[in-house]
This record gives sequence, structure tokens and C-alpha cells, in this order.
Amino acid sequence: MLSMTEDKTLKTLPGVRGAPEHELRRRILDAAEARFRHYGVDKTTVAEIASDLGISSAYIYKFYASKLAIAEAIVAEVLTRLADPLREVVESDAPASDRLRLYYQVLLERALDLFFHERKLHDMIRTSLDQQWQAVDHWKVMQAGFVRRILEDGRAGGEFETRTPLNDLVEAIWMSLVPFAHPSVLQHLHLDYDLPGHARHLADLVLRGLSRN
Amino acid sequence: MLSMTEDKTLKTLPGVRGAPEHELRRRILDAAEARFRHYGVDKTTVAEIASDLGISSAYIYKFYASKLAIAEAIVAEVLTRLADPLREVVESDAPASDRLRLYYQVLLERALDLFFHERKLHDMIRTSLDQQWQAVDHWKVMQAGFVRRILEDGRAGGEFETRTPLNDLVEAIWMSLVPFAHPSVLQHLHLDYDLPGHARHLADLVLRGLSRN
Repeated sequence: MLSMTEDKTLKTLPGVRGAPEHELRRRILDAAEARFRHYGVDKTTVAEIASDLGISSAYIYKFYASKLAIAEAIVAEVLTRLADPLREVVESDAPASDRLRLYYQVLLERALDLFFHERKLHDMIRTSLDQQWQAVDHWKVMQAGFVRRILEDGRAGGEFETRTPLNDLVEAIWMSLVPFAHPSVLQHLHLDYDLPGHARHLADLVLRGLSRN
Repeated sequence: MLSMTEDKTLKTLPGVRGAPEHELRRRILDAAEARFRHYGVDKTTVAEIASDLGISSAYIYKFYASKLAIAEAIVAEVLTRLADPLREVVESDAPASDRLRLYYQVLLERALDLFFHERKLHDMIRTSLDQQWQAVDHWKVMQAGFVRRILEDGRAGGEFETRTPLNDLVEAIWMSLVPFAHPSVLQHLHLDYDLPGHARHLADLVLRGLSRN
């Protein structure tokens, strides 16, 4: 089932047509994702997705303007799934500094998991970045919101210093997270570098920079 | 002229043949770079480079095993040119904290300059990362060395705390620099983000994390 968030995201994506709650929309995405997952977007046609569902391509076009519109909707869903465990970290009761430390770790774990176990979906995200798909913008805004939330809690609770403008810190920390989530960077660095170790050391350094002394 | 560093780098690259100091080697690289710069690697042939120099392709193959070997040698040179202003920052007399702050800024400036003004060379570096060319490894090791040097100076001079293992800090800071140098990240973020501002805020946060209190 589509969650509220996914519904909202879907409606704002280009190339998404028709009633958002239609049950067939879900089935189209599931069938398309299964194909994309195994064969990639390039080697999948709308006719094949339609055939898997026993419907016509024309029927699919009532819901999505193109194969790319389907792919973009799936990237939005993949990114939402990637964000779920991060939201859990942000909304937990732990001290803000523990949550921020964990955030680096979970972000990297989830991104590496996608890279190692769902390479085709990983490649779709890489493509969506190259082609500036809208789904990625939602993700970036969401990440910045998560970081802001942890910082606000840490400042309110007296864990973090409050002299530095909050926006500057959101920008700084968001940027420091990029290497642990960006598909190209992970692809280029995962072989030669202990990324979990690097993430831990960077999180520790950032937390020292946030501390009140 | 090849500098000492470039000579050393060249000799260790795969596909580089013959006497390293041969004058024709320099002319082949210059002719190839001019073509790569304007047409890209894909649309350039060894025959065209040879023709620009009034020599045979066979003669070029005495020095380089393939067009790719030439491309890799040029990427090594481009990265060396990119590193020169960074070395100046590292070797200046300024306090370590000023040098580290400037390092973020100069790295981003040089990387963006390549992106905006030498797109084909920028794309070559992107390719070299995707294909794990050796030239990029030299660059990564050099960057880590630069960071280490600034940290050592700052620790020796009493500017930075000395409790944290030096290696952990080198890893953390090297990682925090990646978004400001990585060709894909720059390409994906430069339109929507004030990267120089982000670099400044991250450098400030890192420096607070390094301070003695």
C-alpha cells in the first residue's frame, strides 16, 4: 500500500496521471519494479510491464506518461524506503548526539545495502541524479529536515552549542553526509576505504564541533 | 615540461612505455589533450593525434599502449595541476586552521573551475573514477597527505587538540572534502546549492571539532 507520504510524492511527480489511489497504479509499480530490479530500466519496455499484468500498454499510459515516469515513481518509492529507518533514528528518544552518530551509520548501511543487493535500483538512483529527477529533490529536502530536527533537539536540550546559526549547521552536516549516500561516491570508494570507519570518525569530529565547549 | 612529480606519476601508470624523458612524449600528451579538451576522448582517435603531430600512429604506440593510456596520463596531469594550488595552501606560513579553511575553498574553486570551463577534462576525471584508473589513486593519497600535514602542524603548534588519533582525523576530514571535489557530486549539486557557503560552514564546524577546548 502507498503510505501518505508516497501518495503526496507521487502526485507531484511529472508524468503521473489519473486517480492517485487507483489499485492498478500500485500493481503497475510493483510489476515495473520487479522488471527494473532484474533487467534495469533500459532493457524493460512498457509492453512487457503490461504483459506481466495482462493489460494493454494503453491502459498503463492512463496512469503514467512514459516508462521514465514509472521509473521516477519507483525511485521516489525506493528513496522513501531508504528514509524510513532514518526517520526512526530521528524520532527516537535517544540523546541528539547519539541520534546524529547513528544517522551517519544507518544512512551508509542502507545506501551500501542498496548498492550491494539491489544494483539495478542503485543505478536508477544514479541516473535520477544525473538527469535531475524530481524524486531526488524530495529526498534532499527530507534529509536536511531530519538533520535540522536532530540539531534543534540537541540545542533545546543543552547538548549542542547555540551560537552558530542553525541553517549553517544544517548545510554543513547535510554536506558531510553526502559521501555516505551518494551512489557514485559509494561506487568509487567502497573498495578501497573502510567507509563505516570513516563515517564514525567524521560523526565524532562533527559532534565535537557541535559540543558546548 | 614535466615536473618531477609528473614524471614519477607517469612512470607508474599502466600502458606508459619507452623513455620517460623523451620530448615527443610531451608533444603527444599536448596534442592529445588539445583534442580531448575539444572533442572528448570518445571522439578522438590515435590516428588524429598522430596526424596533428605529423607522425605515424605506430610511433605513438612506442610511447603509449593505447588511447586510454594517453587519457590516463592526461588525467594524472590534470589532477597534478589541480593539486598545485592546494600544495601552496598546505605549505604556506599561515596558521593551520587558516590553511584548513582555505583548503576547502581552494579545492572547491579549482574543481568548479574545471567543471565550468573544461567540461571534457572534468568528464575524463569522472570516467577515470568510474573505471578506477590509477591516476585517481595518486590524487586520493596526495589529498590525504595534504590533510595530514596541516593536522600535524596544527597539533604541533598547539592549535588543535591531540587526544584523537591522527589517522581518524585524516579519514574524517578527507571524507568531508569529497563532496567539494567529486565530479558527480559537483554536477548534481552545483545548480541548487551554494557550495562555497556550504564548504565554509563545514570547514568552520570541522575546525571547532579540532579545537583544543
